[in-house]
Amino acid sequence: MAKLWDKGYELNAQVEAFTVGNDYILDRELLVADCAAGVAHVRMLAACRIISDDSGRLLAGELASIAARASRGEIVIDRADEDGHTTIETLLTEALGEPGKEVHAGRSRNDQVLAATRIYTRERLLDVFARLDRVVTLLLDRAEEHEYTVMPGRTHLQAAMLSTLGLWFGSYAEQLLDDWHLLASLYPLCNRSPLGSAASYGVPLPIDREMVAKTLGFASVQNNVLSVQASRGHLDGQIIGALADIFATLSRMASDLVLFSLPELGYVKLPEALCSGSSIMPQKRNPDVLELLRGKAATVAGYAEQARAVVRSLPSGYNRDVQETKAPLLGALAEADRALAVVEVLAGEMEPVAERMKSALTPELFATDYALELLASGTPFRDAYRLAAEGSTERPMPDPETARRARTATGSPGNLNLSAPRGELEERRELTARWLSEHRAAVRATVGLDSVIPVPERPSN
Amino acid sequence: MAKLWDKGYELNAQVEAFTVGNDYILDRELLVADCAAGVAHVRMLAACRIISDDSGRLLAGELASIAARASRGEIVIDRADEDGHTTIETLLTEALGEPGKEVHAGRSRNDQVLAATRIYTRERLLDVFARLDRVVTLLLDRAEEHEYTVMPGRTHLQAAMLSTLGLWFGSYAEQLLDDWHLLASLYPLCNRSPLGSAASYGVPLPIDREMVAKTLGFASVQNNVLSVQASRGHLDGQIIGALADIFATLSRMASDLVLFSLPELGYVKLPEALCSGSSIMPQKRNPDVLELLRGKAATVAGYAEQARAVVRSLPSGYNRDVQETKAPLLGALAEADRALAVVEVLAGEMEPVAERMKSALTPELFATDYALELLASGTPFRDAYRLAAEGSTERPMPDPETARRARTATGSPGNLNLSAPRGELEERRELTARWLSEHRAAVRATVGLDSVIPVPERPSN
Amino acid sequence: MAKLWDKGYELNAQVEAFTVGNDYILDRELLVADCAAGVAHVRMLAACRIISDDSGRLLAGELASIAARASRGEIVIDRADEDGHTTIETLLTEALGEPGKEVHAGRSRNDQVLAATRIYTRERLLDVFARLDRVVTLLLDRAEEHEYTVMPGRTHLQAAMLSTLGLWFGSYAEQLLDDWHLLASLYPLCNRSPLGSAASYGVPLPIDREMVAKTLGFASVQNNVLSVQASRGHLDGQIIGALADIFATLSRMASDLVLFSLPELGYVKLPEALCSGSSIMPQKRNPDVLELLRGKAATVAGYAEQARAVVRSLPSGYNRDVQETKAPLLGALAEADRALAVVEVLAGEMEPVAERMKSALTPELFATDYALELLASGTPFRDAYRLAAEGSTERPMPDPETARRARTATGSPGNLNLSAPRGELEERRELTARWLSEHRAAVRATVGLDSVIPVPERPSN
Amino acid sequence: MAKLWDKGYELNAQVEAFTVGNDYILDRELLVADCAAGVAHVRMLAACRIISDDSGRLLAGELASIAARASRGEIVIDRADEDGHTTIETLLTEALGEPGKEVHAGRSRNDQVLAATRIYTRERLLDVFARLDRVVTLLLDRAEEHEYTVMPGRTHLQAAMLSTLGLWFGSYAEQLLDDWHLLASLYPLCNRSPLGSAASYGVPLPIDREMVAKTLGFASVQNNVLSVQASRGHLDGQIIGALADIFATLSRMASDLVLFSLPELGYVKLPEALCSGSSIMPQKRNPDVLELLRGKAATVAGYAEQARAVVRSLPSGYNRDVQETKAPLLGALAEADRALAVVEVLAGEMEPVAERMKSALTPELFATDYALELLASGTPFRDAYRLAAEGSTERPMPDPETARRARTATGSPGNLNLSAPRGELEERRELTARWLSEHRAAVRATVGLDSVIPVPERPSN
Repeated sequence: MAKLWDKGYELNAQVEAFTVGNDYILDRELLVADCAAGVAHVRMLAACRIISDDSGRLLAGELASIAARASRGEIVIDRADEDGHTTIETLLTEALGEPGKEVHAGRSRNDQVLAATRIYTRERLLDVFARLDRVVTLLLDRAEEHEYTVMPGRTHLQAAMLSTLGLWFGSYAEQLLDDWHLLASLYPLCNRSPLGSAASYGVPLPIDREMVAKTLGFASVQNNVLSVQASRGHLDGQIIGALADIFATLSRMASDLVLFSLPELGYVKLPEALCSGSSIMPQKRNPDVLELLRGKAATVAGYAEQARAVVRSLPSGYNRDVQETKAPLLGALAEADRALAVVEVLAGEMEPVAERMKSALTPELFATDYALELLASGTPFRDAYRLAAEGSTERPMPDPETARRARTATGSPGNLNLSAPRGELEERRELTARWLSEHRAAVRATVGLDSVIPVPERPSN
Repeated sequence: MAKLWDKGYELNAQVEAFTVGNDYILDRELLVADCAAGVAHVRMLAACRIISDDSGRLLAGELASIAARASRGEIVIDRADEDGHTTIETLLTEALGEPGKEVHAGRSRNDQVLAATRIYTRERLLDVFARLDRVVTLLLDRAEEHEYTVMPGRTHLQAAMLSTLGLWFGSYAEQLLDDWHLLASLYPLCNRSPLGSAASYGVPLPIDREMVAKTLGFASVQNNVLSVQASRGHLDGQIIGALADIFATLSRMASDLVLFSLPELGYVKLPEALCSGSSIMPQKRNPDVLELLRGKAATVAGYAEQARAVVRSLPSGYNRDVQETKAPLLGALAEADRALAVVEVLAGEMEPVAERMKSALTPELFATDYALELLASGTPFRDAYRLAAEGSTERPMPDPETARRARTATGSPGNLNLSAPRGELEERRELTARWLSEHRAAVRATVGLDSVIPVPERPSN
Repeated sequence: MAKLWDKGYELNAQVEAFTVGNDYILDRELLVADCAAGVAHVRMLAACRIISDDSGRLLAGELASIAARASRGEIVIDRADEDGHTTIETLLTEALGEPGKEVHAGRSRNDQVLAATRIYTRERLLDVFARLDRVVTLLLDRAEEHEYTVMPGRTHLQAAMLSTLGLWFGSYAEQLLDDWHLLASLYPLCNRSPLGSAASYGVPLPIDREMVAKTLGFASVQNNVLSVQASRGHLDGQIIGALADIFATLSRMASDLVLFSLPELGYVKLPEALCSGSSIMPQKRNPDVLELLRGKAATVAGYAEQARAVVRSLPSGYNRDVQETKAPLLGALAEADRALAVVEVLAGEMEPVAERMKSALTPELFATDYALELLASGTPFRDAYRLAAEGSTERPMPDPETARRARTATGSPGNLNLSAPRGELEERRELTARWLSEHRAAVRATVGLDSVIPVPERPSN
Repeated sequence: MAKLWDKGYELNAQVEAFTVGNDYILDRELLVADCAAGVAHVRMLAACRIISDDSGRLLAGELASIAARASRGEIVIDRADEDGHTTIETLLTEALGEPGKEVHAGRSRNDQVLAATRIYTRERLLDVFARLDRVVTLLLDRAEEHEYTVMPGRTHLQAAMLSTLGLWFGSYAEQLLDDWHLLASLYPLCNRSPLGSAASYGVPLPIDREMVAKTLGFASVQNNVLSVQASRGHLDGQIIGALADIFATLSRMASDLVLFSLPELGYVKLPEALCSGSSIMPQKRNPDVLELLRGKAATVAGYAEQARAVVRSLPSGYNRDVQETKAPLLGALAEADRALAVVEVLAGEMEPVAERMKSALTPELFATDYALELLASGTPFRDAYRLAAEGSTERPMPDPETARRARTATGSPGNLNLSAPRGELEERRELTARWLSEHRAAVRATVGLDSVIPVPERPSN
């Protein structure tokens, strides 16, 4: 099976191993999205009279058929094919003969891979949004459930002040809403059609970029064709970076829970299903999942740096270096999907041990309360602070619930104000729903499927 | 001058050098913003009857006076003071005696530094937006000016297809608009009031977080007090990351221009003012500014990684580690400001050499045109491709202007469609203007100044 | 097939997908090395009377047999097995019954995976050293061959002074020798036996760590058992970092060659086998291999950051996070192997075009020569510099060969002093040969094979 | 004061601010080393008859005098001077007139800055080695002191097995010895003379690079002049990377101690001098120093990435980008010096609380001992494991000292084998002492001082 650019000589085998890398594996993930883009492209070519209506119909039909097989994991990209684009074109030519070759008119592998990647990424992001929705909902529900569950709030890892488990749950809900905001703000950059930019400089053909964009459910055409190419890798790095920020938040949550589940503290019982044992220390129940959340936060941060480093000083126009941004993008999207699935289990099934948390409260944690009490009775602040510091261990323990209620300001333990994040979640949900329906309609209208993500890698849910 | 938490023992000098680091220098930048936050805080304390109206008035007046001096660069933070917050409190106490200490009621250094940093960052971001506006405007103007200036478009660094300088200018305008979109999407996360979160768990006082937020021009209160603390460092890393993405785009532009200004190509003459000479090679005119743009792209990317690495696996609640995110944030904001100032000069004053660009066009660059011509006359695509490849050097050179006009699709050399980026710029400009007026009003209403950035570091413009 | 730590409950499928990740694929690479470590371990157990001689013999024999099959790629690790250690133990138990379980006495998966990784890494490093030897040898030969091939030396990418292609070739030889020095200095850290450290705290059994180390060809035992565990991930990051430094050097070489092979310069013709074509621009010959060298430099730098970020703030003792350092280590070692194979082709087959390089010399490049001439005739330096700058373009072109010969100082174009790098290479070669023979002897003596790297992934050479 | 390359036009002020950056501040650190390199250079010029003996004497004398003033912090580099090299040349010309200009013969700012940086870095590294010596010595002494202090050894942060504080102290001693090995292996790469490489391509003058190298105490000339330039930034990144690895180890130690000093555990009392208080929570004693060690580990890792990213895809020959590697190098060296000073205090003064550690031991920690006991009495390993797991909490607690002594293998709690690290330390110390005496002799012989590090930044010790 010949490569698209074959010129009649054989590439050295080592060079081929080096240049193809695992692209032929990664491209399996993109085959369905690639076919969807192809369908939109050939319909446009026919509408613009660049190819015949018959060719257009035949190509679109065959592409949909290839997509269906790819969706079921039935198409393997031969390493000698180098990439998925070649595989698709070869299958088209095998099926249709001459007209199979026409699919490539007015298109380059550069805008083709961009289109496939964007459609694929769109769906992966929508999956991530859906998982974030479930996780944030759970966290808010549990914040409400534990509004009155008092615990020591820690600074410098040490018990420092009164807090509640509700505050803790709500904190992560709001952190994830913020991270989601950033990731969602990248969706519109991803949701623009790159097709028609060809190899960075457009094509001398009367193609209709808007028609293609519309067919594929893109919100618009990405305008300047040279900037389209420049966004390859660059946007990928931004998306991976925003996913890495979500991981950083999950990593922090994991660090908290590793501590909370320490036998010495015992604030939380992790679900058995999330722990593993030890081959040599039979008594252990290890929080592996939490540790891997931390470890994968480092991994995905590394992916972001990979993609960004690749493009940082590239000149304009296509350069092969950008191939190296595909693996980190696909890797980060898959890791995010799996991690959020696990966090959903974690958030839903971890069991707080309210009595352990409450019994960890000591009079010292209320030194600030005491200082402010002195202040209220007329002692100047710094003196109140000194007085409170001196006698903190000798005072009786105040009632935690009374103390909790005294924290009345917005977002404090006495006033979690959950309607704020719930309102934000509602807005986010509506936006996501609209994007999802546009994406689904386009996938259905082009390849007649529900998803561009092939079966074996489809996040099990 | 005593530290806020002084307990009567002396810190080992080495430990002090280690812990204070250069915080006492960095905090000079934040003094005015810190005072502004203080004014809002004491007004609220008085309104909520936590301090007396007299104390409130005295403190607000003195804070404004300190801000004015800090704005002129007249306040030096002593290293023994450790940070700017201590300096301000000391000055207040020197001026007002006892009531000076009341400023710290219902507040911690943790939310205080967050507030100062956000107000300061807000203004720095608005400065960056203003510079982006000027640079993008210039690039779009020059794109229009050079709509017909043909040049070789490069892929793999090699001349590959017909392009125009207009496409090149427009490409960077649109790339910067995209990067700006991401940075602007972080502004709302920055534009929320952290005050009242104290040391992560709120305070047992009936404070009014909304009033403080409103006084300071924040769009809202950042709700959950524990999530406020978690956003320290995290949001900083996101902002630095978005600045690093702008630098990546500038670095790419610089790489192009280093190439374009090579004597062997000579497409562009760099402004003399942007070049330096060599101490040992008298004839050289070196594109130092371009090289530093690339170098600083690496620097700012390192800053982003610094901030993100600091917070990646921290547990909840304040941890001192986050101090290390201040230098990279302030550094990145200052570098972005200086870099965009230079790029403005560059974009405005570089001189294209149209004849060198045009004379670099060769018949080979039109092989695609020829292939598509064959296609139009009925030859199947792959055959057309092969025929075009074989004879590319022997064909006569087609008219570049005709070829340019044939690229009619949206965003192509024959149809730059500049109204699209111009429209986007207009929207961005309106949003920025609104944010700017809200920020300015708040600064004026609290400390009676036009800016929170002190004189010596004020971007010279 | 049960996991080692199975306690009778089923892990949630999603959790399993998350925690196992692709460990079951990566571990295929390590199976042979794992078996080799196992053989050394059971021989020691028998020698120390912890297991019977019969058990020792049976286990050692079966492990060698598993190794042989793994070496031919015949053993697949089932995802449900979670990792290669479980697979090996299961195969042992299937073959031997009860005694199969004894292999795990006095050992933990923690020191087991460390041992396998070190033995595997040792061989991979030796492969990299062998490739570096060939590449450096080629570069030095070509430096000698092109001692007199003059070319413009560039600073700021611009032609600046007289240079030679010999200097250029020699420069990369010496850079790679330096990078090799750093990588080689990590070999002794890798070449210490971790076995016997168990799960970080040793075992209450009279095991003989020295005997195991000796059997496996390690230069010594890594002493403190807790520091052994701490070196997991940490040393990996250092090794990947040193590989990334090699890639940085290759990336620089690639950047030079992308420029040198630009048609506008034409200093070098790249071997056809290293170039690819374009699907839409038939006339192109693209330096894909060079671009991928640059791209992969970013990738491997990302791997280094991944591994280092994982371990940066872990506490003492085993934590699951370190699992995330395996993929970047194995990935970096494989990429280095492939990249150096390609660079060998590149260094050997690129064709310099001496006349293009010579004709690129201009009088300006000799301004320094002229300035120094003036200096020699009594003009003060700065005045000489100014005079040379003023008239540089009007002077006649001096004879390049005469000018070259005037650069007589060590390591200059007129005196490449290749005996220095050749001497260093010779020392390096001897050291490597000794290490290699020790490694080979140990592999042969334990599993009776020539290599611990299984067939399908063995670098094709 | 004119810049070296002044051509009669004024650089735009913004461009100057951008290009000079803080180089004029950083260069203050390098002035003494720069003068030392200058002395060696002018002596060679005179010896080679390139300048007169009188000029040589005058210049050397004046350079030593400038060095003395710089050493006392008396020389300020004017921002308009751009860098320290210009300042030195200006001072020379002011003092000596015409002959002052001759210092620049046969030299470029490129090799000049490299020479100054290497001499400076050499001394900084020797300082770091001296601090490592003290820290490792302390840790080994404390390991010996606490050989019998039992404590729970943790995996997954949870108490898991018997350990000792001696093992913990010894572990960090050995980790630091490993990190030191890597850093020390970079010293020879740093300890080579770059002088004579000029602007990457040597000079057409009969200079004697060996004589300069010898005068400056370099072990050799760095041979290929183009590779000299390539090592700028590249070697810096490697050195920063090795410092970052030391920080990673310190960060891990800090993470352990944050946990050990938690009131809930109370294994360790941190020295009062290393803790700070809270402005709002009077009772707190916060481990700020430990948290900053973690934070600075992220900072220095960011510095390493900065330097490495700058050079990763630069072409050969000097490029201005490398200026951006100076700040991270100087920053990392200073941070390492300060951090190790603090760790010395920490290692020496932290107070273990043996009774808390001992009372944290529980029967479950001895499950492995029990399993192995069963094994010894004939039960197969896996069955022993299961039996031990089932009854672990019901068994009586074994004697910890007996259990400790059962860990007899090398490097285990029962056999710390401290002679191994002590021997290694001894060798390291000898090597360092030799390097130090060579460096000191060269500094004394050129500028007549004891150190090239100027007073105000000299590590306070």
